[in-house]
Amino acid sequence: MKGWLFTETGVDPKLIEKEDPKAKDDEVVIDVKAAGLCHSDVGALQDPGWMELITAAPVIFGHECAGVISEVGEGVTDWKVGDRVGVAPQHPETNAAIGYQRDGGYATKIAVPSVQLVSLPDNVSFVEGAAATDAGMTSHHAIFDRGGAKKGMKIGIVGIGGLGQFGAQMALIEGCEVIAADVSPNARALAEEIGCHKVYEDVSEMKADEPEVIIDFAGFGETTTKALDVVPRNGRVVVVGMGKLDIDLSTYTLITKQLDLLGSNGGTVDDVAGVYKFFATGKLKPQLETISFEEIKDGLDRLKRHEVRGRLVALVNQDDN
Amino acid sequence: MKGWLFTETGVDPKLIEKEDPKAKDDEVVIDVKAAGLCHSDVGALQDPGWMELITAAPVIFGHECAGVISEVGEGVTDWKVGDRVGVAPQHPETNAAIGYQRDGGYATKIAVPSVQLVSLPDNVSFVEGAAATDAGMTSHHAIFDRGGAKKGMKIGIVGIGGLGQFGAQMALIEGCEVIAADVSPNARALAEEIGCHKVYEDVSEMKADEPEVIIDFAGFGETTTKALDVVPRNGRVVVVGMGKLDIDLSTYTLITKQLDLLGSNGGTVDDVAGVYKFFATGKLKPQLETISFEEIKDGLDRLKRHEVRGRLVALVNQDDN
Repeated sequence: MKGWLFTETGVDPKLIEKEDPKAKDDEVVIDVKAAGLCHSDVGALQDPGWMELITAAPVIFGHECAGVISEVGEGVTDWKVGDRVGVAPQHPETNAAIGYQRDGGYATKIAVPSVQLVSLPDNVSFVEGAAATDAGMTSHHAIFDRGGAKKGMKIGIVGIGGLGQFGAQMALIEGCEVIAADVSPNARALAEEIGCHKVYEDVSEMKADEPEVIIDFAGFGETTTKALDVVPRNGRVVVVGMGKLDIDLSTYTLITKQLDLLGSNGGTVDDVAGVYKFFATGKLKPQLETISFEEIKDGLDRLKRHEVRGRLVALVNQDDN
Repeated sequence: MKGWLFTETGVDPKLIEKEDPKAKDDEVVIDVKAAGLCHSDVGALQDPGWMELITAAPVIFGHECAGVISEVGEGVTDWKVGDRVGVAPQHPETNAAIGYQRDGGYATKIAVPSVQLVSLPDNVSFVEGAAATDAGMTSHHAIFDRGGAKKGMKIGIVGIGGLGQFGAQMALIEGCEVIAADVSPNARALAEEIGCHKVYEDVSEMKADEPEVIIDFAGFGETTTKALDVVPRNGRVVVVGMGKLDIDLSTYTLITKQLDLLGSNGGTVDDVAGVYKFFATGKLKPQLETISFEEIKDGLDRLKRHEVRGRLVALVNQDDN
């Protein structure tokens, strides 16, 4: 197999060849078909702090991938060779992530625990399947699992960036009334384009709409406190973004309006499956750009230089498709 | 009927006689048997700010009572004359409270909407039934409804005052492991006495125990932030006390540990019914002191001078019992 190896902070990932992985007990091996490029990997390449997290270095990089099962280990009963699958980045119990704590998806083959597998519907492409596993999963988890968004509800989305636009589209497809806020004119234009019902510059402008749940993908302190002011009694604010790491919170508002303030972090196989359902409707259209497997290092360089709109996804083993 | 009339801030409540109330549609009239004295009423007598809230002044005071139904209005089908009942202080839809927005329970008779009634079990006294409707209801709501406490769970209780001791006892009867913290040595002695499994001075000492839910009845800012540090990943902190009206919150902790921070305010008929169930076990023993109906003004004066331990409850119409 081939794969892009991360060795240490400040050193470019290197395309290497190594022996094919074998499926251990409760694992499968996947022929990777698509691998999404994530800004976290740029962080890992630049910030020495990540070395503490990347416990398996040297390790094959990449934590967003989808492909076809090519081998099934002992004890795996729910999956078979030939199944189209995506991979939730983290193990549900150990939290070990592919690409950081074990070999990842910037590779032609990857071995993963079967508990991280999600079935990829036939009408969802591998590229979509890969992109869904991180940005998609995280915004799905925040909006539907933590936020409890359901058809007919009024949902506020703060920050229409990578996660926010993914989340806003899913909430719209679900049948929610979506109220968006973003300080960036470009992001507001995008919010209009994808069909948000109201689009504001400042969170406090949502007051008139009283969304019962607000998801704060920005997390700039005042975005969160304004969200708490804006939601009605028994409302909920979910914080995902870490723009600022602490806030001045009015407990008077929290108590008298009996609010929920919830943190949201990552997601589960159920969230990935949820995103696949939205993709299967044919209506979810996040911005995706494909590159070749050989261009992964160049792609990460482009991410570093902020030259990418939407998500970059590398095609792997797709000459035979 | 007789009742204690609140007229305006700074003026003592006055025992008056007025015409008996009649049950309007969907209301009942109750012969009051016991009425709890609440520190809120001292606030209402001293702080002019309350005049905005007390929209029905002059009004009969008192928002904690229990008694026997003596008249049933049109449209009331679930209740009959002779039923033993307690009264949830607030209307579930309008939030109008007896004793503030309509005539209350420091009276021989009271008319209340039937949606605020809770059946009082035969083995629970009217005195307990009255005390359960405010302090009991509020702590029940915080611990069981907002906190989700269940048998076998590890629950932290911060502040073993009026609400906290009520709540800690209920959590113990439920079968929770209860970890208490209070800065006051007297309160800690009480926590030991009622059987809390661990008793600390500072919230941060709970760290070793990792209670999955902490109810902060103090709400002094750092009690809440320390509680957020102490609970494990996916933990929950419920804030009830308003010792300080704003806090410095680490959103990093909230997000990476994926915590719930919930405000809790008042309660419902279901919470009052929940407290009655705990009383019916015979194990719930909050500190209660009874006085006569004529002593209600003196009782409020004692509350004002902080001369009361536990809850004062006035006996009403009990000569015939």
